[in-house]
Amino acid sequence: MSGVAQGGWLVIAGLGPGDWQLVTPEVEEALAEATDIIGYIPYVARVPDRAGLVKHASDNRVEIDRARHALELATRGRRVVVVSSGDPGVFAMASAVFEALEAGPEAWRALDLRVLPGITAMLAASARAGAPLGHDFCAINLSDNLKPWVLIEKRLRLAVEGDFAMAFYNPRSKSRPEGFARTLDLLNETCGDRRPVIFARAVSTPDEELRVVPLPECTPEMADMRTVVIVGSSRTRIIARDKAGERSPIVYTPRSVPV
Amino acid sequence: MSGVAQGGWLVIAGLGPGDWQLVTPEVEEALAEATDIIGYIPYVARVPDRAGLVKHASDNRVEIDRARHALELATRGRRVVVVSSGDPGVFAMASAVFEALEAGPEAWRALDLRVLPGITAMLAASARAGAPLGHDFCAINLSDNLKPWVLIEKRLRLAVEGDFAMAFYNPRSKSRPEGFARTLDLLNETCGDRRPVIFARAVSTPDEELRVVPLPECTPEMADMRTVVIVGSSRTRIIARDKAGERSPIVYTPRSVPV
Repeated sequence: MSGVAQGGWLVIAGLGPGDWQLVTPEVEEALAEATDIIGYIPYVARVPDRAGLVKHASDNRVEIDRARHALELATRGRRVVVVSSGDPGVFAMASAVFEALEAGPEAWRALDLRVLPGITAMLAASARAGAPLGHDFCAINLSDNLKPWVLIEKRLRLAVEGDFAMAFYNPRSKSRPEGFARTLDLLNETCGDRRPVIFARAVSTPDEELRVVPLPECTPEMADMRTVVIVGSSRTRIIARDKAGERSPIVYTPRSVPV
Repeated sequence: MSGVAQGGWLVIAGLGPGDWQLVTPEVEEALAEATDIIGYIPYVARVPDRAGLVKHASDNRVEIDRARHALELATRGRRVVVVSSGDPGVFAMASAVFEALEAGPEAWRALDLRVLPGITAMLAASARAGAPLGHDFCAINLSDNLKPWVLIEKRLRLAVEGDFAMAFYNPRSKSRPEGFARTLDLLNETCGDRRPVIFARAVSTPDEELRVVPLPECTPEMADMRTVVIVGSSRTRIIARDKAGERSPIVYTPRSVPV
């Protein structure tokens, strides 16, 4: 006996950066079939209400409790969608659900469980700016809530040494105002050039803002928790679109590196 | 006079990994409004025929010619969609179009031009496997057609040193059979553990295959041009789903690294 009620399932779905035009049809379908939606308050709020749908919104930083709750509901036969912004596998709920699953009762392993990808913030931002991630790149979570800051610094130095472009998630929050300032200092010291940095805030929402700033002119206040930051490699280029500068320039990283 | 005919536009769109359930509504809309579709033969073939739609399919390795053709057509007033598999900004057509645009006539800069993101192969693969990219990671194109092999090796070593998970695009082709063998040698030598490697082939298509193999047991033949390879970090974990091993295990990288 597996301990799992018939008909229950758990889907961990990515809602993309905000606009419904960026939600995949398979995610839309899972949301339509769900009995329960679970996630961080603003992401749950994105899912339209309908009869029979129970929404469980929780605050930030309770990811493991939320994951356990989702696993329990699915085990009892509910059809549960855990929603993340962007892609659930990139600094979002999928790893939290698997951490809870691994530590939980054996029955949870028999669940019908699927992860449905979404458009992650760095790729939505990259598309708006041009193609800054068109060559090898790294994705780094700048929050030191779950890892030591020295490890973040080590990774930044190695990424610069390898001349990767970089995408930063969670660059700065009210409770962590200093990390991003240190990141900019480190990048200025190690890169030593004027490579473009893209500050992409709330892409595809009414609050969208996009700024392209040369590295030495970046300041910590340019980023907040709704911003993804993309730092070019040494080869990243800017194409001006008009002389007046009214249209955003195109930022792209060429595919090739000469021998 | 800008040299650009009224009404033309250029969209560089990502078709996702294969299944139409993974194509975003905004890409679907652009395809519906297009007069011309341009791209690599198998990607153009994915777009359904309809009256008034001209499809321009070209072979691999002619990306710059293809990009110029797309820019010319849009300048003449056509509504052009350049299609890529996955996301156009990740080892796909967006950078090629911007390389052509930067080198081309001034008029091209005035074009109405948008990049529409898609579900890139590594995120489709990651979702199928669990959440192997749930912590910091790198994306590396293993093809040395456009960059020296020594740079690829350098990046691999730095990625291992930083304990990033890694996603490899274009791991192996008939014309480049050796690079992936060298990559596996380098990883075995530098990682020195049995971390899981995911070979995800043609995810979301009828040809989908997913294999999870401990690093020392990987062989070059496990990858081809339709495979994306994900290598875990030293902390990546496996959760067995049943004792018989009939269901694929879950592979995930925990969010945290202890101090």
